[in-house]
Amino acid sequence: MDVAELVDRARERQPRAVAKLISLVEDASPKLREIAAALTPYTGHARVIGLTGPPGVGKSTSTSVLVTALRKAGQRVGVLAIDPSSPFSGGALLGDRIRMTEHATDPGVFIRSMATRGHLGGLAWATPQAVRVLDAAGFDVVLIETVGVGQSEVDVVGLADTTVVLLAPGLGDGVQAAKAGVLEIADVFVVNKADRDGADVVARDLKQLIAYGRREVRGESWRQPIVRTVASRGEGAEELVRALDEHREWLETRGELVRRRTRRAASEVEAIAVRRLRAELADLHGGGHLNGLAERVVERALDPYAAADALLAELKPGQ
Amino acid sequence: MDVAELVDRARERQPRAVAKLISLVEDASPKLREIAAALTPYTGHARVIGLTGPPGVGKSTSTSVLVTALRKAGQRVGVLAIDPSSPFSGGALLGDRIRMTEHATDPGVFIRSMATRGHLGGLAWATPQAVRVLDAAGFDVVLIETVGVGQSEVDVVGLADTTVVLLAPGLGDGVQAAKAGVLEIADVFVVNKADRDGADVVARDLKQLIAYGRREVRGESWRQPIVRTVASRGEGAEELVRALDEHREWLETRGELVRRRTRRAASEVEAIAVRRLRAELADLHGGGHLNGLAERVVERALDPYAAADALLAELKPGQ
Repeated sequence: MDVAELVDRARERQPRAVAKLISLVEDASPKLREIAAALTPYTGHARVIGLTGPPGVGKSTSTSVLVTALRKAGQRVGVLAIDPSSPFSGGALLGDRIRMTEHATDPGVFIRSMATRGHLGGLAWATPQAVRVLDAAGFDVVLIETVGVGQSEVDVVGLADTTVVLLAPGLGDGVQAAKAGVLEIADVFVVNKADRDGADVVARDLKQLIAYGRREVRGESWRQPIVRTVASRGEGAEELVRALDEHREWLETRGELVRRRTRRAASEVEAIAVRRLRAELADLHGGGHLNGLAERVVERALDPYAAADALLAELKPGQ
Repeated sequence: MDVAELVDRARERQPRAVAKLISLVEDASPKLREIAAALTPYTGHARVIGLTGPPGVGKSTSTSVLVTALRKAGQRVGVLAIDPSSPFSGGALLGDRIRMTEHATDPGVFIRSMATRGHLGGLAWATPQAVRVLDAAGFDVVLIETVGVGQSEVDVVGLADTTVVLLAPGLGDGVQAAKAGVLEIADVFVVNKADRDGADVVARDLKQLIAYGRREVRGESWRQPIVRTVASRGEGAEELVRALDEHREWLETRGELVRRRTRRAASEVEAIAVRRLRAELADLHGGGHLNGLAERVVERALDPYAAADALLAELKPGQ
């Protein structure tokens, strides 16, 4: 099937075409350029929401509950579950299976786990392109879900229009350790397992953090709300959807939505450019150039900066 | 203090000079080029050992026990604890404090946690340079320890001379989920908490995995040993040291040590070159070029590949 036909079918909401396009992204298909060009005219509609939190916080359940609530509100939802590429995790796959059973029969939901292990910078490269596929396929909301460990993973989820950070009681010194990192990427906080002991402490600590580190945007601030949920019983989902809607409205009235999307597009364009440059570096003299330089570094005949100079000189011979 | 003096002091094993050099690496000091040139002649001595495993496997304790065993064998040990840059973790810092108390008074041990959050590709860039500092400072062994989640983190630890993967019973479907990923980076397996129920099952499953996925190197294979430890009681440390020594011998007799170090140097040189290219991309027209292209992508006037073309054309105007 050619790209145009595949894109047509994805826009007709055929799940297999959507899945195929995401697979082509993951496999770094040579057709990607053509795919991106074909998709671009149909993008810009979807709200992109990132969800992250420490292991054990109830991310999969929360995602599932949020999907249910968004479906009630008539929204079509695509979910990208970012596998943290751990050789140990397997979590995303398991989570998929659980969530798939609940939403499997619903044509308004598409769930996909992304595994990009072994590609440095692979997440930054593949995720926005997969978002683009779901956006063009007409999903109203794209949820990017990832466990909040790993620098690439957190970076990617922080590029959403709205980023939700989940915490829960009983996960060690989660909030104390959270510090500035969470404040930077969180637009909405969720305290899940809110029926458990310690939930009040988590919420109170969060409030202090927020008061301390309030983000300033053009002189006006978004005060991150704290939503309490018990995802396992579906409690708090409506409040979460409301908080997301309020943030969306704030984004739009402040011009911040365009700014965030520009930042995301910049990250995507940069990742595509860097990937191409890396391929060129690797290809110099059929890969022999980098290897030869590395051998000289191991022999201590060159330091790594001098070797990088030599590599770059070869990449840009005219300069 | 100038770089030459700092390097001299580090080579005289003054911990503050070593710490200062690693801080300069982490902060991407403009002096890095000079530092790398000054360090390079003194490198190549240290054995670089990577340690990883899922959360809860007992990595910090195992590292501490391994440090003790290596010290008994007369080795000076530097430890780089890679913080997985999670805004939630805080684990590395806590771990440091615990380990520091045990080894604080020992001048033959240097422990440092690396946090490089917020820099895409930061780990691949900073870690080999920090290893270089410890190597030049005369440490016989450099241990790189990281939790086995996050693509960048696993990539980095997989670039050691020898990579140890820890597993333990009671961590869910750890081994089943491990699959090929672990086999690719593990040279030595440790089943920690070997006194607990389920340790035999973990070891048996590992044996099957190894039999199934044995790594072939030039027609001869290294069969990954499985060492059982109870790190909390210091049990199995000698066996682990022996397994590490055997792997080291295998590396040397097969010429594999030079191959691995060349691969690591290539990764370092590439990371330095890519970082420089990224800085150049970001600097084009004072950052305005990338931003302007991103705006056009958001407006759907350009697809991201066409935008990347335009960015690269500006980077290499002669071509």
